[in-house]
Amino acid sequence: MDVLTSEPDRAAFSAENCSVARTLALVGEKWTLLLLREAYYGTRRFTDFEARLGLARNLLTARLQTLVDGGLLTRVPYREPGTRTRHEYRLTDAGRELFPVLVALLQWGDAHLADADGPAAVLQHRDCGQPVRAVVQCAAGHQPLALRDVRLLPGPGARPATDG
Amino acid sequence: MDVLTSEPDRAAFSAENCSVARTLALVGEKWTLLLLREAYYGTRRFTDFEARLGLARNLLTARLQTLVDGGLLTRVPYREPGTRTRHEYRLTDAGRELFPVLVALLQWGDAHLADADGPAAVLQHRDCGQPVRAVVQCAAGHQPLALRDVRLLPGPGARPATDG
Repeated sequence: MDVLTSEPDRAAFSAENCSVARTLALVGEKWTLLLLREAYYGTRRFTDFEARLGLARNLLTARLQTLVDGGLLTRVPYREPGTRTRHEYRLTDAGRELFPVLVALLQWGDAHLADADGPAAVLQHRDCGQPVRAVVQCAAGHQPLALRDVRLLPGPGARPATDG
Repeated sequence: MDVLTSEPDRAAFSAENCSVARTLALVGEKWTLLLLREAYYGTRRFTDFEARLGLARNLLTARLQTLVDGGLLTRVPYREPGTRTRHEYRLTDAGRELFPVLVALLQWGDAHLADADGPAAVLQHRDCGQPVRAVVQCAAGHQPLALRDVRLLPGPGARPATDG
């Protein structure tokens, strides 16, 4: 089977408390994920985010605040000699844990949307130099799993669907 | 090191042809990824997408078209006895290949945003019944790799940064 559930089963799931929807409510906006990409690059300062993303200041302020409110970035004061106190935005553990999402987006884009001369950037394992990818696997180690290899079941927090 | 590049190196990368940005230009909108989630559940028909997502028809039409234009869904005519021809939306191989992104979003939400009674849904390997996750690994098999284990290098399509 090529999908996660068969049609009749779909009605057993409420999308109301779906973790994908909740994550997207937080980061499901292009600029929010690109801000996170910049934070992964090592960017911390407002002016650097601004220069590298070309995003309007009011939008940048709002998107950074979303990530701070969501616990993915933390706002830390710093002061350079002779200047007023400013703030920088540092990744939290929760922010770092979205890394597989970015790697998965990157590899899809590399496969389907890269220029003829190839990807703009490559990720490699720091220790061994081998290229890096995101894979779906099971706890028994079977991998890579495709959509057709995976089944969706109601979890402990499942609620009955309200749409019939 | 806890980031993909050190600060001075970041300037060597243009974000212009970044595969993450390109992928997000296509699917970086909450409803687009939720439509894909529904397609993974097995939903194919406009009325079913509408009922399950609660999205306005004009927005749903636009988002489905984005996914068709991007090659993630394909529009196929069908006809039930006594009715006019309608179309359903089927996943393409490219659409299925975004599966690791959805799994990674799901597990982050399960870890950080689930209700006290636990996740609404669980994914298991169809063959062995073990739970499923998305991990970052290298071609030599080292895993799971965190942000700190990975380094970003210019790829064959890298362009000099234009922002200085």
